[in-house]
Amino acid sequence: MFSENSIIASLKKEFPKYIGDDAAVIEKTGEQSYVVAKDILIEDVHFRTSYFDPLSLAHKALHANLSDIAAMGSEPKFLLLGISIPVSQEKYIEEFLLHFASLCKEALVILIGGDTTRSTDKIFISITVIGTALTKDIKRRNTAKPGDLICVAGDIGEAYLGFIACEKSLKGFEDYKKKFLRPEAKLKEGMWFAYQPSVTSMMDISDGLDVDVKNLCKASHLRARIELDLLMPDSMFRSSCTSLKIDPEEAILSGGEDYSLLFTVNPASYESLAKDFLDKFGYKIKHIGFVEKGEDVYYSANGKPKFPNLKPFSHLGESL
Amino acid sequence: MFSENSIIASLKKEFPKYIGDDAAVIEKTGEQSYVVAKDILIEDVHFRTSYFDPLSLAHKALHANLSDIAAMGSEPKFLLLGISIPVSQEKYIEEFLLHFASLCKEALVILIGGDTTRSTDKIFISITVIGTALTKDIKRRNTAKPGDLICVAGDIGEAYLGFIACEKSLKGFEDYKKKFLRPEAKLKEGMWFAYQPSVTSMMDISDGLDVDVKNLCKASHLRARIELDLLMPDSMFRSSCTSLKIDPEEAILSGGEDYSLLFTVNPASYESLAKDFLDKFGYKIKHIGFVEKGEDVYYSANGKPKFPNLKPFSHLGESL
Repeated sequence: MFSENSIIASLKKEFPKYIGDDAAVIEKTGEQSYVVAKDILIEDVHFRTSYFDPLSLAHKALHANLSDIAAMGSEPKFLLLGISIPVSQEKYIEEFLLHFASLCKEALVILIGGDTTRSTDKIFISITVIGTALTKDIKRRNTAKPGDLICVAGDIGEAYLGFIACEKSLKGFEDYKKKFLRPEAKLKEGMWFAYQPSVTSMMDISDGLDVDVKNLCKASHLRARIELDLLMPDSMFRSSCTSLKIDPEEAILSGGEDYSLLFTVNPASYESLAKDFLDKFGYKIKHIGFVEKGEDVYYSANGKPKFPNLKPFSHLGESL
Repeated sequence: MFSENSIIASLKKEFPKYIGDDAAVIEKTGEQSYVVAKDILIEDVHFRTSYFDPLSLAHKALHANLSDIAAMGSEPKFLLLGISIPVSQEKYIEEFLLHFASLCKEALVILIGGDTTRSTDKIFISITVIGTALTKDIKRRNTAKPGDLICVAGDIGEAYLGFIACEKSLKGFEDYKKKFLRPEAKLKEGMWFAYQPSVTSMMDISDGLDVDVKNLCKASHLRARIELDLLMPDSMFRSSCTSLKIDPEEAILSGGEDYSLLFTVNPASYESLAKDFLDKFGYKIKHIGFVEKGEDVYYSANGKPKFPNLKPFSHLGESL
């Protein structure tokens, strides 16, 4: 059996220059690049129509893809939509397409093409987004330096609470459900980070913090030290976890689809970056640890090593 | 119920500048453009693993996409592969990926990214190809002029014979099966046509000649006059049709997936173009009719109007 990572690793070996970030970078002019990302969403793997209304699905499909562009510090410009439609879902998809087109317009993204086909029974959505960026400002995963602080912009684990509430068909948990069903890609933040030389690497958090920190560290050939105390969730999050019968630590470290930004910062610039960010966006970035020479991720709590028992976020039973 | 064309028409209305050709054109530099195409292939809609071995599927998936780039007169450069894999098909997909990577290399196309996910039961493949072209040389569908000759480079209907032979699990028909299972995008021809100013419009023939001629005419606001005598197949094709119990006219007009090129030529330049093409590629382009003011497609045979009873090519029962 092979894993998603082994597929990517083997293709990366064949085509080493481009694969490894949230999106691929191809030259536009001497100074500018196009940044290209592609994501798939499949019914009953990534979403269920039972709790994703067409607007929510349009939101999710668009922003999951925009998030990859945000993670590179790029500005999305163009989109291609591939969609495969089972006969039974035509009405649903018609509504989806209307919402999708207006959400693209809202995000100033131009739909330039795609493909529509019949599907036997499941809805398949495949989106390609193309953004632009100044080549020198593009953020990547493999550029963190030993000693850099690991930071997060945005929520961690909240979408997972919404996911569990949806899966269990529970009433309430509306804020969390919204985070899961209608995520917002951190486009403005990504573009702002692009212009901050003190931000040394960046990616989005879509597969869960633990997996994504590992991916960043692997790309940069570094080890992460994460202080779990710095990730302590608020009491509302904890009490929701109790109601949902999930471990808060697991939700935070393994819960995916927050589409927050994970990045590293030169420690000398952290204070001023954090202040400027707060002034600009009205919420705080979180400093959760640092990178050093070595590999993998080491967790600690109250200064003592900790070994959380984690299984990666797997959508609806996906386990590549 | 909505059709693929109605979806495209409604999206085209929202985003008028880019949609309507085999691929979308976005600016690269002042003189150059990127040409971006996206195609989906779904198990049991576009292919069956019972007769597509992994190499054939890799071939089909790649060349169906490259054909869209060829149709614009562009040179393919980059590719993103999205693939969703059911647990039961892991071995098959592993082989597919090995072949796909080497076919990309053969075609000088660099795999720059993509997405891999679990699928519940069907294989889903979504490919985005990016090519480059001189903007002034890009061929489109909406630029045919009244009086231009309608021409074809490549086979018509042969892939359909292979498709039927595969579907009926018949032995023999190897040449036709190969045309269906392992098509070759007409990349060199497409790039050569790009430099011929006498070629006034172009697209590929993937949905069947009748549908594709209609699409070209609709884009150019013209009517096609097709002389069926000019499309007469050879005796081997006719006798294979008899064995397969299919109407040769239907195979030629409705059979899809030949990935030949359909184009219009200024009549004054046709003779020299046809000669140059034969010298360069070793086979003949076919002149099958002409365009005039009006709309739709009119067929004739022996100078008399004909009204073939056609249903569009629908893969494995796909009928969007």
